[in-house]
Amino acid sequence: MSAPTPNESDERLGVWLVGARGNVATTAIVGARAIARGLTGTTGMVTERAPVSRLELPPVSGFVFGGHDIERESLLEQATRQSERNGVPDGETLATVEDDLERIDERIEVGTARNCGAAVSAESQHLDPELTVGSVVEQIRSDYRAFREDHGLDRLVVVNVASTEPELDDSDAYDSREALERAIEEDDGDLPASVLYAYAAVVDGHPFVNFTPSTGNALGGIRELAVEKNVPHMGRDAKTGETLVKSALAPMFAGRNLQVLAWEGHNILGNKDGLVLEDDANAAGKLSSKGELLESILPDIGHNRVRIDYTPSLADWKTAWDYIHFEGFLDTEMKMQFTWEGSDSALAAPLVLDLVRLIAHADEHDEGGLQPQLSSFFKAPLGVDEHDFSRQLEGLTEYAERHS
Amino acid sequence: MSAPTPNESDERLGVWLVGARGNVATTAIVGARAIARGLTGTTGMVTERAPVSRLELPPVSGFVFGGHDIERESLLEQATRQSERNGVPDGETLATVEDDLERIDERIEVGTARNCGAAVSAESQHLDPELTVGSVVEQIRSDYRAFREDHGLDRLVVVNVASTEPELDDSDAYDSREALERAIEEDDGDLPASVLYAYAAVVDGHPFVNFTPSTGNALGGIRELAVEKNVPHMGRDAKTGETLVKSALAPMFAGRNLQVLAWEGHNILGNKDGLVLEDDANAAGKLSSKGELLESILPDIGHNRVRIDYTPSLADWKTAWDYIHFEGFLDTEMKMQFTWEGSDSALAAPLVLDLVRLIAHADEHDEGGLQPQLSSFFKAPLGVDEHDFSRQLEGLTEYAERHS
Amino acid sequence: MSAPTPNESDERLGVWLVGARGNVATTAIVGARAIARGLTGTTGMVTERAPVSRLELPPVSGFVFGGHDIERESLLEQATRQSERNGVPDGETLATVEDDLERIDERIEVGTARNCGAAVSAESQHLDPELTVGSVVEQIRSDYRAFREDHGLDRLVVVNVASTEPELDDSDAYDSREALERAIEEDDGDLPASVLYAYAAVVDGHPFVNFTPSTGNALGGIRELAVEKNVPHMGRDAKTGETLVKSALAPMFAGRNLQVLAWEGHNILGNKDGLVLEDDANAAGKLSSKGELLESILPDIGHNRVRIDYTPSLADWKTAWDYIHFEGFLDTEMKMQFTWEGSDSALAAPLVLDLVRLIAHADEHDEGGLQPQLSSFFKAPLGVDEHDFSRQLEGLTEYAERHS
Amino acid sequence: MSAPTPNESDERLGVWLVGARGNVATTAIVGARAIARGLTGTTGMVTERAPVSRLELPPVSGFVFGGHDIERESLLEQATRQSERNGVPDGETLATVEDDLERIDERIEVGTARNCGAAVSAESQHLDPELTVGSVVEQIRSDYRAFREDHGLDRLVVVNVASTEPELDDSDAYDSREALERAIEEDDGDLPASVLYAYAAVVDGHPFVNFTPSTGNALGGIRELAVEKNVPHMGRDAKTGETLVKSALAPMFAGRNLQVLAWEGHNILGNKDGLVLEDDANAAGKLSSKGELLESILPDIGHNRVRIDYTPSLADWKTAWDYIHFEGFLDTEMKMQFTWEGSDSALAAPLVLDLVRLIAHADEHDEGGLQPQLSSFFKAPLGVDEHDFSRQLEGLTEYAERHS
Ligand SMILES: NC(=O)c1ccc[n+]([C@@H]2O[C@H](COP(=O)([O-])OP(=O)(O)OC[C@H]3O[C@@H](n4cnc5c(N)ncnc54)[C@H](O)[C@@H]3O)[C@@H](O)[C@H]2O)c1
Ligand SMILES: NC(=O)c1ccc[n+]([C@@H]2O[C@H](COP(=O)([O-])OP(=O)(O)OC[C@H]3O[C@@H](n4cnc5c(N)ncnc54)[C@H](O)[C@@H]3O)[C@@H](O)[C@H]2O)c1
Ligand SMILES: NC(=O)c1ccc[n+]([C@@H]2O[C@H](COP(=O)([O-])OP(=O)(O)OC[C@H]3O[C@@H](n4cnc5c(N)ncnc54)[C@H](O)[C@@H]3O)[C@@H](O)[C@H]2O)c1
Ligand SMILES: NC(=O)c1ccc[n+]([C@@H]2O[C@H](COP(=O)([O-])OP(=O)(O)OC[C@H]3O[C@@H](n4cnc5c(N)ncnc54)[C@H](O)[C@@H]3O)[C@@H](O)[C@H]2O)c1
Ligand code: NA
Ligand code: NA
Repeated sequence: MSAPTPNESDERLGVWLVGARGNVATTAIVGARAIARGLTGTTGMVTERAPVSRLELPPVSGFVFGGHDIERESLLEQATRQSERNGVPDGETLATVEDDLERIDERIEVGTARNCGAAVSAESQHLDPELTVGSVVEQIRSDYRAFREDHGLDRLVVVNVASTEPELDDSDAYDSREALERAIEEDDGDLPASVLYAYAAVVDGHPFVNFTPSTGNALGGIRELAVEKNVPHMGRDAKTGETLVKSALAPMFAGRNLQVLAWEGHNILGNKDGLVLEDDANAAGKLSSKGELLESILPDIGHNRVRIDYTPSLADWKTAWDYIHFEGFLDTEMKMQFTWEGSDSALAAPLVLDLVRLIAHADEHDEGGLQPQLSSFFKAPLGVDEHDFSRQLEGLTEYAERHS
Repeated sequence: MSAPTPNESDERLGVWLVGARGNVATTAIVGARAIARGLTGTTGMVTERAPVSRLELPPVSGFVFGGHDIERESLLEQATRQSERNGVPDGETLATVEDDLERIDERIEVGTARNCGAAVSAESQHLDPELTVGSVVEQIRSDYRAFREDHGLDRLVVVNVASTEPELDDSDAYDSREALERAIEEDDGDLPASVLYAYAAVVDGHPFVNFTPSTGNALGGIRELAVEKNVPHMGRDAKTGETLVKSALAPMFAGRNLQVLAWEGHNILGNKDGLVLEDDANAAGKLSSKGELLESILPDIGHNRVRIDYTPSLADWKTAWDYIHFEGFLDTEMKMQFTWEGSDSALAAPLVLDLVRLIAHADEHDEGGLQPQLSSFFKAPLGVDEHDFSRQLEGLTEYAERHS
Repeated sequence: MSAPTPNESDERLGVWLVGARGNVATTAIVGARAIARGLTGTTGMVTERAPVSRLELPPVSGFVFGGHDIERESLLEQATRQSERNGVPDGETLATVEDDLERIDERIEVGTARNCGAAVSAESQHLDPELTVGSVVEQIRSDYRAFREDHGLDRLVVVNVASTEPELDDSDAYDSREALERAIEEDDGDLPASVLYAYAAVVDGHPFVNFTPSTGNALGGIRELAVEKNVPHMGRDAKTGETLVKSALAPMFAGRNLQVLAWEGHNILGNKDGLVLEDDANAAGKLSSKGELLESILPDIGHNRVRIDYTPSLADWKTAWDYIHFEGFLDTEMKMQFTWEGSDSALAAPLVLDLVRLIAHADEHDEGGLQPQLSSFFKAPLGVDEHDFSRQLEGLTEYAERHS
Repeated sequence: MSAPTPNESDERLGVWLVGARGNVATTAIVGARAIARGLTGTTGMVTERAPVSRLELPPVSGFVFGGHDIERESLLEQATRQSERNGVPDGETLATVEDDLERIDERIEVGTARNCGAAVSAESQHLDPELTVGSVVEQIRSDYRAFREDHGLDRLVVVNVASTEPELDDSDAYDSREALERAIEEDDGDLPASVLYAYAAVVDGHPFVNFTPSTGNALGGIRELAVEKNVPHMGRDAKTGETLVKSALAPMFAGRNLQVLAWEGHNILGNKDGLVLEDDANAAGKLSSKGELLESILPDIGHNRVRIDYTPSLADWKTAWDYIHFEGFLDTEMKMQFTWEGSDSALAAPLVLDLVRLIAHADEHDEGGLQPQLSSFFKAPLGVDEHDFSRQLEGLTEYAERHS
């Protein structure tokens, strides 16, 4: 249990989680409060390890949480279920942060479920689907604003940790700020929730992180807006398990000039994210950000498939089995296999906290637009071609050294 | 099957393999000749991949092979047995290079077996153990010299691919050139064969590579000599299988601030190298170069063990099973496992060819002493602390960019 | 290499393979001829191990092969491709049986492709689809008869090793001999090839084995016919890899009263069988015979899924990864995983030879109808509920003891 | 959570555990009490599954526990540590049985540590080593007797779950009752604790089970005594994890006439049992009972090795990796691998309860001597050659059918 670093700013930082009652959000909130109360260490947090820990970053213990969700069950109910089913968090930790969870739950507003797919929106509570896109955006902006004012925050970071949406068919149609804003104005029925949350954040200067494979800030129009407003933002699809391992291993095959004939990746998991991803439409984005990484590092790869299956008994535990068939010298065929058994949310949650701290840091230093130094956190880092995890991390190291 | 690149020097390069009739040497020779005859591609060779391939390097097809061994069975007999037991090389390839192997076998001289351990020297044919150390060194120097002259070579690179020796007890006693040369003069009975081969090479200006965990050029006295004579040399213990994977994976755990509680590595293999390593004395060096890597990348590791067991039916195929128990956020315990099934010599042989080319390149450019740009090839790279494979490889990339 | 047993009958036995140019058939034929020529042993053959080896069985070396196929490429071409891609058979073995293969290829007749699915029948050569069902049956009967007469055979065993067909929609419609024969007469367009091959065999007294998941002799009408004619027959879907392991392991969980929460089975393979099974229709039967076994041994199983994916680089090598999540005492969750890497046809081929010998034995002893003593060979043994491999095998042991 | 079956006898049954404060004993006691209090089901108990559940067996809820140990820490302290380190039992279950544990702990007497090896006896509290063997036996007999009288028990079953002892050098010297009793009389210094516990039980008619690989009742002298006194007893070394899997899988390779070239088994575990087994002397018996099983089922096996390594972070969780290299038809080499991750004590504890019930049943039915129907519970079942798990289990099924 390593102690938090001393090197911390003392601003009041708001953290707005879209999907605030989900697994990842709940674990991030529980973890932050457990750290604040001295119950747990910071293992798993990249910002607590040198040299990144030498940056002056907002302390996790000072985060003020709020968010949107479309789920009725409270944060505490969610956390209790997670504790019972997954063992994460453990009972003792949960007991100590119970009051915190109840307080934070009151700050969670009803979100929009536009174009989130049937797997997500069924049985949920959400903003009236009859509202115009413009009114939805206004509502979200006002939620952000009210939170910031009510809690006297110096800064508000918005993080999308909501369920994965189906892919947007024609994302090129919103390639410029102008096209996007016209679409909002004209009540374009295709725009998905993630884009509205992202737009509402960036247009008002709130740094934005897309932890999910959903479209969000990947849209050309939002990227242009972020540059114009000098708002830092980054995404997409956090790299936590099998894909993280791939980004560490694939460069080894490339670096040794070994020919990968086939890389089969088979994932089984049992949480709600897994259930949503059973729906082919919602899985599309996930599979593509998982798959592209290999094609990028191993352009000559012979065969590359990723499967995600729902196995209820595993709860939040994700197991991946990867089988790598490769050829070496003298046409010799060889094999590597791995299995990865991790708690999905325990892997994701500390990265949420890291990203909040680092994007707040960029914002404080007036560094707007995409944040390539954060590429190591994402399966499909916006604006970055490098997928080798070690080299991506060097980008963060250099950033840390530059700023400390 | 990628074609060799055009960018090649045309010098006559001699390649002297100590342990020339072993698995690694045989596969390297078969492979080089098969490439020369257009039978196979260069998959597995780092020097055939951009940006290293942009260097002007001696072509593999022009290598003139010779060497030392203490084994009576001919190169062709060895290769035939390998082909039958391991399937590497395949029968067709072997048939085509048969004459080459017979010709090269005539250039293999009897070596010394001093302090190589009982597992190695029993039943071997070797230089008279009654000879003084000084005479052994003279014999080796004269073998190198004669080969160079007989074949009109522009340069001779010496590579140690002989069986692993027991560790040298007191390597500090030979910390300076002066101490080492006095020990040779005074017929010091402790000096092992690998040191004598290395000394004989470096003192006469032949670049030297130690592919094995044996002492060889790691000794202080030889390192000093190499600086004084400006001779390039590097080692030790080539990184081909399980340890290669470790050097790609361990940085991922470090980079994400995940706490490795235990890393168990269990290797089974069935070739002569495996048999020799069954002997605890001979295994010591191997286990320590395999083990140190993790301690270096993961200084807080809780438990770290490597086992090597001999499983005859596997022949040259090495299987490793690694079990990694780690802790993440909220004290969550998770696991990763991998298995690696590779042909040991098919993995090693192309690296022998790469190292010959790259050390010859350094020699041509008058870059003497240790060669840190070659660190990615070794489990215990001399003079280099970095063990992250991606970062080691960047050193080679930078070298290639600097020179091309 | 164990020598064939002495205890053999000397009748001339014909072996008619439906799908004679496929992987399984080719390997069975190559193996039988290699045994006949003393090139290989009988490892993998159940009938060559006590106590089954004590039965008086027709010698493999005396098998006279013929068959149907819809593929144009010759047996030798198939075997050569298998040898090159899979390494099974090896080059030397293939060379020795080449003449045998050419001779046997001339005895392969053009078959019917009725209702075999697009994945199979495209580009094939087959009996005119305009023929009535009745005429097709007549053609097949006459092919069997001619073969028997031309080669002076004492007995003809027919084995279906053709590609898996799509499932028959309404198999109950052919529940009696009478219904089936009326359907043939009335030119019922739904009857698939496997049923026609089976009917033609049984109606003329040829013992029949269905090695595949296709309908064939599983149909009520054929079972009735076999009883009436006292013809031995058995099936279906030979148990060679992952499912074999399941039938050995699942009883352990049952026997120890451990609760299996989830059993995930993921298969990858690269041969033509794999390609055909990529087609959902053709895969249906396979997945159901693979899946039912677990439900039968573990009636309380929580979750049970089997996947088959096509991975071209694996050729005939099938790799299965199974993940078993189970609960024990004090609600403790535990895990078992296995991988199985086998040559599909090397596993299947000896069983073809075993089944031919054992069904010929039953025929000689006038034991018609289903053959429950052969249940251990099948994923979905007709007429047998026992799926525990050890207990199934005891049935065979008892049969052997009864007859020897 | 299945409810206990109604079919139960109502005698007062005493259960005396030698090693009562160890992992296995503690988990068995916690489990029995949790069942009694309705907190948990009986998953993992063989006697709660048909047809064995149809026997009239003493109810677990009525077991009266007592025992010997040489460890000072109380049962509750042990259970608390297990709960925290292993998660088994969970906190809620533990809380509910706390009082039970405290009460039972008072019934644990100080045992003898004779010839248990330094790894066990150091720092322990045990009977004065200066006592004669005869006096030790008297003390143990009187402990058993007092417990039986104090609690008005109808029957007392003794189970050895103490740490594994080093192997007895010359077990043939105690081959008859007469030789053994003379050795006790003559104060023979070689007799180990397990033999004394077993002798004291059998001589006074208490049924005895040896759950460990220690000598105990395997000695000829005790077997003779048990026959003369008609006392049921059985052993040795309960089959819970890797070896259980082997006994289910190995018959599959045998049954299909596949040639196992090598079977490598590698176990890592982190509990006190693991620590004791790090000591080569104590491990000897364990490795031999684990190893013999394969030799017995696969007499032609090429290579067979089992390793047990101590990995502290795993606590009570044992992971086994097994690698099976086998050859099939046409000399094709193939591979199977498995991993098994189980809580050692959660696997063992229900079997302790099962064995108590079943040996009490035999005693009630005056069936003395060895109990072959219990062979499926043991790695080295005394007096039984059959190692195939399915067939061993059939012995139990037949016993159950005979008695119900
Ligand atoms: N390791 C990881 O867990 C990991 C890694 C990378 C990416 N992700 C992504 O993070 C996201 C969250 O994962 P999770 O496991 O927490 O999933 P989850 O299903 O547990 O939580 C998602 C939450 O989002 C809410 N939600 C859905 N649509 C919404 C909307 N339109 N507006 C507001 N709230 C909405 C849901 O009600 C739910 O509470 C997913 O997109 C997942 O793919 C997770
Ligand atoms: N993947 C790999 O194969 C790999 C990786 C790293 C290091 N290495 C090292 O490379 C070396 C060779 O491995 P191998 O598999 O070829 O082993 P090998 O046993 O097949 O060959 C070693 C050869 O060295 C010869 N030899 C032994 N002592 C000698 C001496 N004193 N002088 C001259 N010749 C001598 C032997 O006779 C034999 O022919 C070993 O030290 C091994 O540890 C191999
Ligand atoms: N381990 C195993 O290989 C295994 C195990 C169990 C079952 N099987 C089953 O055995 C069958 C054969 O497997 P394979 O690997 O040899 O497949 P394959 O695709 O290599 O061979 C099938 C052959 O059947 C021929 N064929 C297809 N339809 C036909 C028809 N209607 N009439 C005559 N010939 C026809 C094809 O042309 C081909 O030559 C498959 O159904 C498979 O599912 C195989
Ligand atoms: N799955 C399993 O856990 C399993 C399976 C088969 C066999 N076993 C065997 O069961 C035994 C117990 O395993 P465990 O995990 O509970 O070990 P443990 O080390 O946790 O417990 C052993 C207990 O025995 C006590 N003990 C040692 N010597 C004694 C003596 N001479 N007299 C009285 N008490 C003594 C110790 O103090 C300790 O409390 C071991 O021999 C083990 O090999 C366990
Ligand atoms: Na080049
Ligand atoms: Na009962």
